[in-house]
Amino acid sequence: MKIIKRNAFYAQSGGVTSVINASACGVIESSRKHKKYINKLYAGKNGILGALKQELIDTSLESTKDVKNLKNTPGGIFGSCRYKLKDYKKDATDYETLVKVFDAYNIGYFFYNGGGDSQDTTNKISEYCSHKGYDIKCIGIPKTVDNDLPLIDCSPGFGSVAKYTAISTVEAGLDVASMCETSTKVFILEVMGRHAGWIAASSALANESRNKPPHIILFPEIKFNETLFLNKVNESINRFGYCVVVASEGVKNRKGKFLAESGAKDAFGHSQLGGVAPYLAELIKTKKGHKCHWAVADYLQRSARHIASKTDVEQAYALGVYAVDIAVRGKNAVMASIKRVSNKPYRWKLASVPLSKVANVEKKLPRKYISSDGYHITKSCRDYIEPLIKGEDYPKFRNGTPIYTSFKNKKVPKKIK
Amino acid sequence: MKIIKRNAFYAQSGGVTSVINASACGVIESSRKHKKYINKLYAGKNGILGALKQELIDTSLESTKDVKNLKNTPGGIFGSCRYKLKDYKKDATDYETLVKVFDAYNIGYFFYNGGGDSQDTTNKISEYCSHKGYDIKCIGIPKTVDNDLPLIDCSPGFGSVAKYTAISTVEAGLDVASMCETSTKVFILEVMGRHAGWIAASSALANESRNKPPHIILFPEIKFNETLFLNKVNESINRFGYCVVVASEGVKNRKGKFLAESGAKDAFGHSQLGGVAPYLAELIKTKKGHKCHWAVADYLQRSARHIASKTDVEQAYALGVYAVDIAVRGKNAVMASIKRVSNKPYRWKLASVPLSKVANVEKKLPRKYISSDGYHITKSCRDYIEPLIKGEDYPKFRNGTPIYTSFKNKKVPKKIK
Repeated sequence: MKIIKRNAFYAQSGGVTSVINASACGVIESSRKHKKYINKLYAGKNGILGALKQELIDTSLESTKDVKNLKNTPGGIFGSCRYKLKDYKKDATDYETLVKVFDAYNIGYFFYNGGGDSQDTTNKISEYCSHKGYDIKCIGIPKTVDNDLPLIDCSPGFGSVAKYTAISTVEAGLDVASMCETSTKVFILEVMGRHAGWIAASSALANESRNKPPHIILFPEIKFNETLFLNKVNESINRFGYCVVVASEGVKNRKGKFLAESGAKDAFGHSQLGGVAPYLAELIKTKKGHKCHWAVADYLQRSARHIASKTDVEQAYALGVYAVDIAVRGKNAVMASIKRVSNKPYRWKLASVPLSKVANVEKKLPRKYISSDGYHITKSCRDYIEPLIKGEDYPKFRNGTPIYTSFKNKKVPKKIK
Repeated sequence: MKIIKRNAFYAQSGGVTSVINASACGVIESSRKHKKYINKLYAGKNGILGALKQELIDTSLESTKDVKNLKNTPGGIFGSCRYKLKDYKKDATDYETLVKVFDAYNIGYFFYNGGGDSQDTTNKISEYCSHKGYDIKCIGIPKTVDNDLPLIDCSPGFGSVAKYTAISTVEAGLDVASMCETSTKVFILEVMGRHAGWIAASSALANESRNKPPHIILFPEIKFNETLFLNKVNESINRFGYCVVVASEGVKNRKGKFLAESGAKDAFGHSQLGGVAPYLAELIKTKKGHKCHWAVADYLQRSARHIASKTDVEQAYALGVYAVDIAVRGKNAVMASIKRVSNKPYRWKLASVPLSKVANVEKKLPRKYISSDGYHITKSCRDYIEPLIKGEDYPKFRNGTPIYTSFKNKKVPKKIK
């Protein structure tokens, strides 16, 4: 059978992670190995917008060395986007454009690297193309620091932010412990996690004992109770002299409202959050009179490539490689996924799962992973997260800072007027 | 001449750093080597309070291995304090207590590890003891992330927070650059530095070009001009698509008032809860309509031992060793200091400087280190900071998180009723 060579299209979507470029590296390297099937790999500038606007980057112009170093570079090298395609049954405009562009550039493989919304996008594009008789293999490559994707053991990006959070908590905890006699009594670290408390949970990984930081974890899955919380803070100060609190940005009150809403909404209609830590600090100061310090890690946590988890980097890279492998073998409308084979020793394998089952499902922290009082994690949660943060994968340094790659990112001429 | 063996007292003071324990390690190891002069090294629990309250820790009970690992552990292992001794000419109560305690425990060497206030304390204690005829060698060991101590090339603790800030800025910058097309346009990182902009300045170390993050640095040394600042933000977005701002916590407006305390209200009419970063984010959102993200690093920056500067660790350790060396050789009322011998290659040596000249002098960022427009650093500033962040000194890891030391910290019985 004669193999028809086609081109491929890869794009990054949604909030980036410190290892999404490791997946990109895997996709590029794997595409270069599959020369029998794939002619050129184009990357979309700013996610799917790169296809919609005919802003296609020719990845063949990047050197082998730069591609290799991409594995160590945080951020999204081609630019990402927050752009949600409409339901094509209601408005097919974008889909029509996509098929035209795909056809003009002879795209036979579509790789979309993103979270839940992006898997949904990939699924819709696959459906529409099939419906229109356009031959293309659509593969989702997972990523999200939130770890809320279903049908995968863990989302690439999570292990590294979990490692960052665990380390930051133990380090800041040692700082507060030193200062608490005459100064700061409470330290609050705000971490990401709008609906799922995975990142907050990971703050407990460095210390096994509940007598050590974090003394209190606030999850979006558990409704905030002001009185109980303030009592817990006091109890911790009485017992240990200080209290370290780690709070998910998505902590909600009894009425289901975010404790600190900024009022702004993003392109998906999600509320833009930030400010739980200062909210809690003010509450503690006003109601209990303790001196508080607070930190909001924001983008620092999800871009901290310098302290990425080796496991996470390896998985992100392997998923990129695997996505291309299965696409050229004819798979379609699936997401590259990870299955856990065993805990101790930790073993995992690659698999593919139907996109239709992934789209729009959010994996929250199960109740059995949260301690009975709602303020800490259980042993089973620790057993689940621990392998994901294992191993260090330091970038190379020059003059005290990491050497991160930049790409030429040369766009190809537009083919459609 | 017969050497009279005495005991020594060491304590940590003020805000801790990620390398103050490296100085403690140096003091302990050096004291153990000088057995001819020093019998026991006691450490004060919570700084000078440990002496005032007779809470003395017997460091001889800590194992060689634990002491060695102390070099890699952030925070203050014996506890620190914020406690300023009064002028003994006005109120000598504390000084009388100190001399009584020193005498009871046969303390012949006093090592105080802290910033400007602590050097002042050390100086006053030295003066008072000399005035009372109590024989003791008082040596200040410098530390402060703020880098504002005079008569020393750099303050131990600064190099590591500078490295953390440089890396965090470049990493978060790559994140924002990926997202700016459809989402976040401005990222603001708030760093420490109430009166001196050294830490903010260090954010520029990873990128030589002003076209790369940070695009704008706000120093406490330069009065904040709202109009100019907002124009700069717009200019950066127009040119690069996004803008990264690094702001010192101590940025002040034209009236000399801290921005963080200027009584701004957030979108819901709540008073801003402190924090220059959220203040600036709100300002930009309200006046220019750009989507902002912000981070406040707070204690994370000064406890980030996982990414400490090797130069900084070496200097902190060497100063601890040196302090004991000069004390047993009879030096008194001096601070152990660092002199820069050359820039390229970077060479430094140890020295001692009179405490009387160190006390109550604050070294701000010189104007020549700030670019003419006031929003960036100059080449001379880069040349000064670069060697201080050089080298990595990773702690050992177990199960994905660093192995940090804990001490027995056993107190000796009180000798005075």
